[in-house]
Amino acid sequence: MKFEVTILGSSSATPIYNRNPTSQVLNINERLYLVDCGEGTQQQMLRFDVRASRIDHIFISHLHGDHYLGLIGLLSSLHLNGRKKTLKLFGPPQLKEIIDLQFKYSETTLQYEIEFTATDPTKTQTIISNEDVIVETIPLDHRIPCTGFLFREKKRLRKLLKDELERIGVPVEYFTALKKGADYTDLKGKLYKNDTLTTDSDEPKAYAYCSDTLYNQQYFKQIDNVDLLYHEATFLNNMLDRAKETHHTTALQAAEVALTVHAKKLLIGHFSARYKTLDELLEEAQSIFPETNLAIEGKTFTV
Amino acid sequence: MKFEVTILGSSSATPIYNRNPTSQVLNINERLYLVDCGEGTQQQMLRFDVRASRIDHIFISHLHGDHYLGLIGLLSSLHLNGRKKTLKLFGPPQLKEIIDLQFKYSETTLQYEIEFTATDPTKTQTIISNEDVIVETIPLDHRIPCTGFLFREKKRLRKLLKDELERIGVPVEYFTALKKGADYTDLKGKLYKNDTLTTDSDEPKAYAYCSDTLYNQQYFKQIDNVDLLYHEATFLNNMLDRAKETHHTTALQAAEVALTVHAKKLLIGHFSARYKTLDELLEEAQSIFPETNLAIEGKTFTV
Repeated sequence: MKFEVTILGSSSATPIYNRNPTSQVLNINERLYLVDCGEGTQQQMLRFDVRASRIDHIFISHLHGDHYLGLIGLLSSLHLNGRKKTLKLFGPPQLKEIIDLQFKYSETTLQYEIEFTATDPTKTQTIISNEDVIVETIPLDHRIPCTGFLFREKKRLRKLLKDELERIGVPVEYFTALKKGADYTDLKGKLYKNDTLTTDSDEPKAYAYCSDTLYNQQYFKQIDNVDLLYHEATFLNNMLDRAKETHHTTALQAAEVALTVHAKKLLIGHFSARYKTLDELLEEAQSIFPETNLAIEGKTFTV
Repeated sequence: MKFEVTILGSSSATPIYNRNPTSQVLNINERLYLVDCGEGTQQQMLRFDVRASRIDHIFISHLHGDHYLGLIGLLSSLHLNGRKKTLKLFGPPQLKEIIDLQFKYSETTLQYEIEFTATDPTKTQTIISNEDVIVETIPLDHRIPCTGFLFREKKRLRKLLKDELERIGVPVEYFTALKKGADYTDLKGKLYKNDTLTTDSDEPKAYAYCSDTLYNQQYFKQIDNVDLLYHEATFLNNMLDRAKETHHTTALQAAEVALTVHAKKLLIGHFSARYKTLDELLEEAQSIFPETNLAIEGKTFTV
């Protein structure tokens, strides 16, 4: 099953050096999930060939502008481009008020429904559970209410050994039962144990999105063992005081989180405008967690 | 005196084909005036080397997203980049409510003051009169309340004939009076008429910004004789019905406005997403008004 993340923006606070504010899009089994939506996200989608019409779920972590100011424009463009499908939107309760006010004054009545779910930054909540994925909020520790999002693949059905099924001549109508673990008995009464006809599906993967937050152990347990951890890394560690003051994390701290929670890979982003190049941030994180990458716009990472 | 306009965006409704939503910046005697501010305007400023910190006046024509969704991000970036100077903002009264709500929920207290002036789309109002320019609102006819803006240079003081003044030996302290039209009498009592020592300054120029509007004669008189007319031209004239229905103008109509009001030059913009290339729009306008240009992003036009 496809499970990957494409970075649309990774600048903190202000756009600079061709870096756009935060946004990323997950492709989970060919469904697109948009996570945060800074100003210019719809332009970035055009640039990187992400079809906005394919997005059915949008998640907003918090109401600092660099994480949501592209949302109204995107919602409006979906409407103008003829969207009819319901869109599920998750974010702080006040987000709804902001959207409603702006559409009220532009006298826009959307052609599609927005199904809004308010997030609660004080506790973990399961906000989606569909055939592909379970999504939980991650309570973070920022200056204003903020949640991350944890995407956990559902365990898939067993995989059929097609050649073996063909050799034995198993009728197609048995396939669903086989995927669910049933044995098969042929017309002569011969029993085939399920594990001779199928193999286990891949272990479900997990992706954690942690933006913006103070280094704070409160969210560590929830994201233990994730395959890919996206963590903000606004500053180098020589700016630790500034990071604390603004409720952000340094690159070294992001790597410490990854180490502590046994993440397999780390992706750092939300870079401060003070860094024209990002090499030092990467090196700092890699110094203790080698499997680190930079959240560079347009790049896609497999979970 | 410098009087020019740089296009930052000229797409209508949605960004597409690398065209951003509407925004443009006027440089009038080295002061910058921002007119509309679609999503991504601050990114466009970075791209085209327009220093946002130099902008002291921002004008928003109306509350369709493609004309103002970049404003909150820009105001926020000015704050984060240390602005202290008051910023004058002109726009529909509801704009203030939208800004206040968004800054309330991001818990942002700007370090600078926004001096907000609500525009009234039902009548022409003079909203700025400083040493360089007079700015009036232009009541337009759109689906929601909308005003254009007319920038009229102030008549400058007379220009000194430096060589002549030096030859006669006119002391510097007389220069201001000469610029204002006074004659000069030297120590021996000899009179020099002002027009032998100065020349008239250039005729004041005028720039009209008309976005978005139905073709409607109500605003023609006010913009008569402008040197440069920016007029929206969302559609080709074969889409006239659609233009009327959506309260927009065709390229041919924009050229008709320019002809009727005796504009010296025409700049068309606000192009519909249906036009991948803009040649046809230009040709249609030029067919009756040859001095037409396309409002291409990054291009600067002298008024």
